[in-house]
This record gives sequence, C-alpha cells and structure tokens, in this order.
Amino acid sequence: MTTSRLTLAHGGGGFQTERLLRDVIFPILSPDGPHAMDDSAVVDLFATRPDADGRLAFTTDSFIVSPLFFPGGDIGRLAVAGTVNDLAVVGAKPLWMSVGFILEEGLEIETLQSICRSIRATAEEAGVQIVTGDTKVVERGKGDGCYINTSGIGRLLCDPGPSLGRARAGDAVIITGTIGDHGAAVVAQRESLALESSLESDVAPLGAMLNGLVERCGDAIHVLKDPTRGGLAMACHEIAGASNVRIELDEVALPVRSEVRAICELLGFDVLEVANEGKAVVVCAVEAAGAVVGHLRDTERGCCAVVCGRVEQVGDTRRVSICPDHPVVVLRTRAGGERLVAKPAGEILPRIC
Amino acid sequence: MTTSRLTLAHGGGGFQTERLLRDVIFPILSPDGPHAMDDSAVVDLFATRPDADGRLAFTTDSFIVSPLFFPGGDIGRLAVAGTVNDLAVVGAKPLWMSVGFILEEGLEIETLQSICRSIRATAEEAGVQIVTGDTKVVERGKGDGCYINTSGIGRLLCDPGPSLGRARAGDAVIITGTIGDHGAAVVAQRESLALESSLESDVAPLGAMLNGLVERCGDAIHVLKDPTRGGLAMACHEIAGASNVRIELDEVALPVRSEVRAICELLGFDVLEVANEGKAVVVCAVEAAGAVVGHLRDTERGCCAVVCGRVEQVGDTRRVSICPDHPVVVLRTRAGGERLVAKPAGEILPRIC
Repeated sequence: MTTSRLTLAHGGGGFQTERLLRDVIFPILSPDGPHAMDDSAVVDLFATRPDADGRLAFTTDSFIVSPLFFPGGDIGRLAVAGTVNDLAVVGAKPLWMSVGFILEEGLEIETLQSICRSIRATAEEAGVQIVTGDTKVVERGKGDGCYINTSGIGRLLCDPGPSLGRARAGDAVIITGTIGDHGAAVVAQRESLALESSLESDVAPLGAMLNGLVERCGDAIHVLKDPTRGGLAMACHEIAGASNVRIELDEVALPVRSEVRAICELLGFDVLEVANEGKAVVVCAVEAAGAVVGHLRDTERGCCAVVCGRVEQVGDTRRVSICPDHPVVVLRTRAGGERLVAKPAGEILPRIC
Repeated sequence: MTTSRLTLAHGGGGFQTERLLRDVIFPILSPDGPHAMDDSAVVDLFATRPDADGRLAFTTDSFIVSPLFFPGGDIGRLAVAGTVNDLAVVGAKPLWMSVGFILEEGLEIETLQSICRSIRATAEEAGVQIVTGDTKVVERGKGDGCYINTSGIGRLLCDPGPSLGRARAGDAVIITGTIGDHGAAVVAQRESLALESSLESDVAPLGAMLNGLVERCGDAIHVLKDPTRGGLAMACHEIAGASNVRIELDEVALPVRSEVRAICELLGFDVLEVANEGKAVVVCAVEAAGAVVGHLRDTERGCCAVVCGRVEQVGDTRRVSICPDHPVVVLRTRAGGERLVAKPAGEILPRIC
C-alpha cells in the first residue's frame, strides 16, 4: 500500500477498496485462498457425500449509509435487500438472515423501531427469515446513529452457479433496469437538493426475480452481479477481471432516469459509478438473451431490462479498439465513439450503503 | 421503555439490554417467534426430509471492544472466539465464518494487519474457515478505529442440543475455570492500572473442548452458556429464566484469580458480573457431573473446571430460602449466608466485547 493510514477511498468500493483487500486483508486472512470476489461464499455441508446436496451460499455485509432514511428506503431495507441480493447473484435461494446492530448512545428508540419495522417488512417481501441477531451500543461520537450488519445463508439452486469468472466472449450483458437511482437519491437527500420530481432509491430484494431466472434459464446464466458501490462500472470491471474478458457497454442502450442524469451532471458524477441497490447485471449466452430479457420484463423489478453490452475476447479488436490486450470496460458512446471506462477510484460517494 | 433514547446501559448485556430486546426489537423483528435467547439459531436445510441431517447453527456478533488490544488478546481474537463459542454452546461444530469490518478513517494499516493476523491465527486454532467478508469505512469521529462483525455456521452434533431452557432441578452447575479474567484485563488496560502480576484476558475459542464434551456426555449436558457481557450472574439469570428454575451458586467453589479480585475491589465491581471470553457454564445431570468435570480438566481450557452450584426447583426452600417462588440466582456466601444475585443492570463495563 502506498499509504499507511486508512482513507474514505478505501471504503468506496472502487480501485482503493480492491487494493486494500488484495494487498492487506486477503494475504493475511486467506493466504492460500483463491480470493474469489463473488458476493457470497459457496460451502458444502456434505462435501464428502456426493448423494446429499448440502451446498450453501453464505454472505455478510455491513451497512453504514448516511442519512439513515432516504427517498425510497432506509438502512433497514438496504441491509435486508443487500444480503438477499448477494445470495441471489450466486444462484442461491435466500433462507435465513442475521441482523447485528451497532447503535450510538442517544439514538431515539423510535428511530430504531422504524428501522426494525423496515427490516421486518423487507424480510417478508423477500421471503427470508431473520433467525438470529446481536445489539451493541457505543458512546456518543463513536458511531453515527445506527450501523447494521446482515449475514445470510441460502441454498444453491444450480451447479455450477453463476459466478464472476464465467463470462465468455460473445455473451450478452443485460441490466435489469435504470442505473444510478440509489446513489442519486441518497446524495440528493444528503445535499438537500430540492427536486421537482420524485427521485427514489431502487433498493429492493431481488431474490424472487433472480432465482426465477436461474431456474428458468439455468446454465445459460453465466454471471449475476448487483452493481452496488462503484456502480455498473465497478461491476463490469470485476466481471472483466475475473473472467479475463473485455466488456463493451452501449451508452444508448443504458437506461438512466432524467433526474439521475441531472444530479450526476450537477455534482459531476459519472452515472456508471453511481450505486444501485435493486438492479442486477446479467451476463448470459447470447442465444438466451431474448428469453432472459423476456423473463426479467415479466417481473416487477425487471420491467425495464435491456441488453446493454457484450463480452469480447481480450485481443479481439474487431468491435472496440481501446487497450486491446487488457480486460477493460469500454463504453460505445452516444456519438458512436469509444471511451475507456476507468475503474472507479477515490471516495466516489462515501457511505452510500 | 421508560426512556426514549438509547443509553450505554442498553448495550451492557444486563437488564436494560434484555428489556431493549424484549420490548423494542423482538416484538417487531419476530412478533410470532419464541424469542429464544440461545446464542445461536438452529435451522434445518432439509426440514421436510427426516432422512437427511441438515441441521445448522447460525449466529452473529458485533465486537466494539475498547481498547482494540489488551493483555491476552485483541478485537480480532475476540471476534473469532466469540462466534465460535456461540456455536459451540448450542452443541454445534463451528465450520465457517464471515468477517465484516467497519473501519474508521485514519486507522493505521498496520493496526488492521495486526488484527487480521490475530483473526487468522484464532481461526486456525479453532479449526474454522473464514469464507466471506466485507469492509466499510466511516469518517473520522463516526467510529472508533475498528468494529468487527463475525457470523458463523456450525453443524449440530446432537439432538436435542444443549439449550438455555433445559436446566432441571437437581442438575449440577459447573464453571470451566476462573471468572472475570476478560473484563478485569480490559478494564485494567483501559484505566492504565499498573499491576504487579500479569493479568490476561481468557479470550479463547472453546469449540474443541465443548464439542468433545457434547460428544462424550451427550444428553446429560443440558445447558452450555458462555458468560460474556453481564458475566456469570447474567448467564445464570438467563438459564434460570428460560428453564424456570432457581440457581444456587457456591461462593467458596467459584474460582477467582487474586488479581481479578483486587481489581473488582478497587473499582467496585461484582466479579459475578464481569465478562469472560474463554469460559463456559455447564449445566448437567448431577450423576454426570464427575465425568463432565473430568473431561473438562483433561483439556487445556478447562483445567480448572469445578462444580460451583446446583439447580433448584422454584418453590423448593429446603436449601435456599430467598424469593422461593421466583427463578432467581442465589449465592451461598463464604460466611454460609445467602445473597440474592441481582440481574446486572446499568452500564456495568461498557464496550467490554
């Protein structure tokens, strides 16, 4: 590491977060591990018994979003949806969750109750059971109202499940809806931007939609990824890196709400880097793309699904020519040109989830 | 609740924590649930298939100890041991863990590395695999260096497993070693008390010891409980309440290090309320008590195990006479008298784990 102290950029979900994990945390915590960056670990309760299917997905996520309540959601809904989605993107059906609170002295009990009600409602919506929890309290000035950790267990629905490393040249890249809604809604609330129209976070549990997709389209689904911190740009970079492929995104195809576009222009954000909490990137065999989009559009959360890009082989310059020998992400712009999509770096939007 | 804002006492692990859970959090998060207070939830992957054994224990815990490093351990060792022990006390073999960091801007990378090394070493000692994780960063003044959440999954070793509600009149109460070591060591470090002798936290993973006990003594083990926040007093109150029994502790039998006794006297703590992080309370059938103590003494962490009390029926006044009709905890004092052990209340020792 070039720095000896932690900065907010280390938590932004972009380049510095990746470096912190790769250079500091992984070498110690799992020196021999494959360092898979998938959102959930896959473990097997009966590894030695091929007759029994005990494959589980296991994931954890802490939520530190500020403010605690924002248009379209709150930290409670975010905490449930985030963990449900991390299980769903590895092809697992979310079953059980834990909720761990780190609360700051002085928090209003009523605020805690509102957050609990939201957790409960979102868990019911997602069909997941909250089975265990923990509550800690820190002194005033050592927290920020409420931080939540949720961990989750799911049952694997398919083998092999979708994984970041399974994208193949020729695959279609699909986004399940408009991008940047969550980050834009939170930052608008934080900056007290008065918006004429109602911009809301997209935060939602995607278990039913993604489980249905995996059950229907099976092995044709190569990668699922929820583009949270670091947005669509970081999600595509993670896929490109893990699969050693190039990803070409089509700017014209990408669905962006006009309010989100306005906020990004106002504050100087690249919408590709803005967090989503109710969307998924789907990489699938190109011949299945029509069926995948069709299935997604039949669901409430996927009604705006579109093909927004494709996977290219490293070294293949027939379609895009930038950095041909590297697993990069390239945007075909509205004007028909090509732009390298940088790996998000710096603070981006701190404490967005 | 009598207060509308959260206080440090709500996190102390005593009476107010119990009230916060019972009055605020449980009624919303699990309105229909049994509100079991066991340290891990037990779930079944194959609830509908009696032929397959898919029973799992699942637990979560956040760690906010201050200071991060203390004699005998640090927050990393504490985070692994705490979750391993929560699995072991429901009769499960700890298999997989998650680690979620909430880090404060400005934390030295080297400090984070030390904590990671400690997590790794303790996980190896406990034979548990760290399979997934998460890292978030908050601004300076919104955290305190490092908070850690660990969640864990274990495989149930027996049915029914030990549970807080299984204590029966006549059972023996055993403690696996000296009490109060963790709390006393942390507070000594925090208050910069210069001690002549070396007082250390007992923080340790007890999976091997407790799994071995359950495998050897099986159904005779009625309750296992790690007396952490709120100490032995709170652990016994939880058992008494859940099983609707009275617990009589024998002051003469309770092992307490002289340094711990000195710190408690100096600072006005009741050693029964001081946290332990490497001890367990075992409630077992009285005829198995000799075998249980024998097995524990054969292990490194249980070499000082002793019978320190017994379980009485509510209403039975033959041995102790205080509050005969309530599930209370009574201490038979060194002088031969009886003292009611109150449920710990107030701040006790904030941020002890």
